[in-house]
Amino acid sequence: MNIKVDPLSDLSIAKNAKMQPIRQISDKIGIPEEALEQYGNYKAKIDPTKIATKTKLGKVVLVTAISPTAAGEGKSTVTVGLADAMKKIGKSVVVALREPSLGPVMGVKGGATGGGYAQVLPMEEINLHFNGDLHAITTANNALAAMIDNHIHQGNELQIDPRRIIWKRVLDMNDRALRHITIGLGGPAQGIPREDGFDITVASEIMAILCLAKDLGDLKERLAQIVIGYTYAKEPITVRVLGVEGALTLLLKEAVKPNLVQTIEGTPAIIHGGPFANIAHGCNSIIATKTAMNLADVVVTEAGFGADLGAEKFMHIKSRQGNIAPDAVVIVATIRALKMQGGTPKELLKEEDVNALLEGTKNLEKHIETIRAFGIEPVVALNKFSADTAAETKALLAWCEERNISIALTEVWERGGAGGVELAKLVLRELEKPKSFAPLYSLSDTIEQKVRTIVQQVYGGKDVVFTDAAKKQIDQITAYGWDALPICMAKTQYSLSDQPKLLGRPTDFTITVREVIPKLGAGFLVCLTGDIMTMPGLPKKPAALKMDVSEDGQAVGLF
Amino acid sequence: MNIKVDPLSDLSIAKNAKMQPIRQISDKIGIPEEALEQYGNYKAKIDPTKIATKTKLGKVVLVTAISPTAAGEGKSTVTVGLADAMKKIGKSVVVALREPSLGPVMGVKGGATGGGYAQVLPMEEINLHFNGDLHAITTANNALAAMIDNHIHQGNELQIDPRRIIWKRVLDMNDRALRHITIGLGGPAQGIPREDGFDITVASEIMAILCLAKDLGDLKERLAQIVIGYTYAKEPITVRVLGVEGALTLLLKEAVKPNLVQTIEGTPAIIHGGPFANIAHGCNSIIATKTAMNLADVVVTEAGFGADLGAEKFMHIKSRQGNIAPDAVVIVATIRALKMQGGTPKELLKEEDVNALLEGTKNLEKHIETIRAFGIEPVVALNKFSADTAAETKALLAWCEERNISIALTEVWERGGAGGVELAKLVLRELEKPKSFAPLYSLSDTIEQKVRTIVQQVYGGKDVVFTDAAKKQIDQITAYGWDALPICMAKTQYSLSDQPKLLGRPTDFTITVREVIPKLGAGFLVCLTGDIMTMPGLPKKPAALKMDVSEDGQAVGLF
Repeated sequence: MNIKVDPLSDLSIAKNAKMQPIRQISDKIGIPEEALEQYGNYKAKIDPTKIATKTKLGKVVLVTAISPTAAGEGKSTVTVGLADAMKKIGKSVVVALREPSLGPVMGVKGGATGGGYAQVLPMEEINLHFNGDLHAITTANNALAAMIDNHIHQGNELQIDPRRIIWKRVLDMNDRALRHITIGLGGPAQGIPREDGFDITVASEIMAILCLAKDLGDLKERLAQIVIGYTYAKEPITVRVLGVEGALTLLLKEAVKPNLVQTIEGTPAIIHGGPFANIAHGCNSIIATKTAMNLADVVVTEAGFGADLGAEKFMHIKSRQGNIAPDAVVIVATIRALKMQGGTPKELLKEEDVNALLEGTKNLEKHIETIRAFGIEPVVALNKFSADTAAETKALLAWCEERNISIALTEVWERGGAGGVELAKLVLRELEKPKSFAPLYSLSDTIEQKVRTIVQQVYGGKDVVFTDAAKKQIDQITAYGWDALPICMAKTQYSLSDQPKLLGRPTDFTITVREVIPKLGAGFLVCLTGDIMTMPGLPKKPAALKMDVSEDGQAVGLF
Repeated sequence: MNIKVDPLSDLSIAKNAKMQPIRQISDKIGIPEEALEQYGNYKAKIDPTKIATKTKLGKVVLVTAISPTAAGEGKSTVTVGLADAMKKIGKSVVVALREPSLGPVMGVKGGATGGGYAQVLPMEEINLHFNGDLHAITTANNALAAMIDNHIHQGNELQIDPRRIIWKRVLDMNDRALRHITIGLGGPAQGIPREDGFDITVASEIMAILCLAKDLGDLKERLAQIVIGYTYAKEPITVRVLGVEGALTLLLKEAVKPNLVQTIEGTPAIIHGGPFANIAHGCNSIIATKTAMNLADVVVTEAGFGADLGAEKFMHIKSRQGNIAPDAVVIVATIRALKMQGGTPKELLKEEDVNALLEGTKNLEKHIETIRAFGIEPVVALNKFSADTAAETKALLAWCEERNISIALTEVWERGGAGGVELAKLVLRELEKPKSFAPLYSLSDTIEQKVRTIVQQVYGGKDVVFTDAAKKQIDQITAYGWDALPICMAKTQYSLSDQPKLLGRPTDFTITVREVIPKLGAGFLVCLTGDIMTMPGLPKKPAALKMDVSEDGQAVGLF
């Protein structure tokens, strides 16, 4: 989320920033020339097969946050600013982020590259089409869908049951009208009529695969393992059986390479993969993080939304599949957002309200407990806003001190890396401590047990309820022998529960799982809870309405 | 189309070719450094605003063909080879081509960058995602669609009639199951149910706009003029009224810049825009052609499919809107394809059959007459295949000589530019002659008259019939005052008629126009004839099934 505390917009700050040629950035971290493919002067792709493996890999700092509100907590901004601060105090550092999706850029956000003086550049290109990775994923996803329907149309040799296809099409767009559709209408020349729907690209299993694959070979193998649906005899149909894993890999062979850019302060930034943390697993790619770990001593990365979503999935999915345990965790909070969690209505957020703030700390407290449950002592980053009052700031610092919680006031939006030095020092102190990370559930637990562990230990809820449909799916998944996979919860980001309006720290709630979808290529089981949608909608006034291009070809309205 | 007369595949020839750094290519034609944005070492985008305007623009050679058959006539190959030949004999030359669509690449063709030793490079990247132009067009098209449905969902202030929306979504994919769909199902939270459908991206009006715009400002103005549908009161709704032309322009601001690559022989190639010639206007962008005309003395360009489609639209749409009259026209023919036009079944094409060949010349003859009707004397390029016999070649050369038709045997597939020198010389001779180009219809003719002129003078048919639905649309279009636009016929490429199986030179046929769609941004009226589909389907064995990536990351199965 972007924060406005300055008359200068993020876009104008970004435009006024002087970028270094990307070759200079890559030289700083020892990327050999043959591993760098420039996309213009300020962007590049890195060929990870040409990066040497270090014996001592860089340490990983995971940035997460309290439950997000419309007030914004500035997680990307703090992630970027923390990396800049690390660089400022002499550390070898790379920041590893996710790629923005055009859905939220055109919809609510209007940009997702940090804010103020803690941004990645060139923000315009990163926010728009970047180096084409999301488009390649969209294309591969939809090529597979076209192949499935074509197979059925051309005689259906594999006996695919059109009622049991679970592979959906995707667009990198917020387009609610495509959630539930019927396709193949119009007579025998137009294919077989069936129910279908589009997800947003970031929720595509191919996005997850790209983010979880170890290398190109693993990518292809995972693509082959995707289950697209079932035959009339209820046997699973894989991409391997359809014979298109080669073509899909070909479509993705450039997209699988991480992208190199820079922060405003010239810190190397690797941006790659962009699953949302509410409807997908919410972490940048393993290839990117591993590449960064081979290039720097400290890697600052983020996982999407609150610690109940991105961080939980980082710990249970990315850590497991990539063997990347976080060495430190930062939880980003703001006075504004804590007040909203504590009940302050949006229109009163600029007024001092210490009581609401303290009520809102309950949300922060739960996320701290969650990170501690994984065996890591988190550091809280209080991301400063201009409207914060001295009394509010003091109250929060005192609240943390009483509970023995490390907290640093950060001013990276206004001051860049200089505003994050205190945070960086606290994080470095945590990096010195011995590691004791452990996941909360075992893969051998039943699906129900795994979900219950997340609901109780991460969300702080009472229990989980599975609908009859979900129960049936669990039985089938177990019968197919796919139950030993980790869980990828799809849940609203706004609440610890599955009800978006339940702010703060609800406790007396039950999570409803309405659907369980196997993603064999990604290697996890998606559980849809509450009303969560895998295709978002646009708001009444989409950000796109303010966008334009000036006469000299410059972007307008990205913020 | 690609031709196989060599055990080496196009892909392996392409891979073995030594490319020059793109900076060397751009230096040759005087592109200033600040106008070039490199995408890797061998691709770039050109900023056309930084190319100086010459007082004496380069001359334009348009390459077209006989009606295509499964036998392939190699139009792109000859286009590239002719440019290489021009370079070989000392001419300053640029070849200007269209960008491949992933639909045919994954479907039938498997590649669309010429063949043999007359190819553009890097063929792999050009055939796959290239510099992202088609993806940007897809995104802009679908952003607009999402905005329309969102507007209706959010209260429908503009009173858009969901039954009268003519803006369709697109994918760069052959996906017949998306031709006729219903969207917005699932209840009040999922939008308004309505009938809809997807076209292939190359048929998007935004593709046409990108190809016909003069500059970024004109692009934005054309986007604003798009009519997306009508209100309940039957008033047209434009993009301007929706207020999203700025956002669409922003999404397209890089895509509107032409792409620079090279041929195997190092001839500069500008590749930009990719409308199909059957369902769209079939020419590369005006910006690209104009840029090429400012950079070289001779510009060799192509228009899609036979002269009845791409060339007709070049003359009536691109020439008019861009003020680019062709200075010479080449019609590509092959012995194989002429024999197919003359009735030889595909399995007997390798056997000599002079009679079928001579029968097939009727198709060639019609296309020659068409080009002559526009006031240009065409040159025929006989594109040599290894199976052609001496008797066949001799018969065709004699047939042309008797009719006073310039013809050159070209061997560019096997020999590159050296195989096209004779053709180049014939073309240069035509370029010396004074220009007498004139379109066949006037914009002030009625819609029916314009279509009739095309049917009779270009297709050689008897007449045109409009369905009742089409007549109603014509009445409405005329009532709105949009009837003074040129026509963009959508017709099968396989026949001069609207019936794909009617080969050779049919005469006793009638064309049926079933739908007339106004494209106010593109500035033409699309007439759908026969069974032509604006979303193709995949064949039984899609080319994708053979595609793969080798262990060292190289493409396999593009041919």
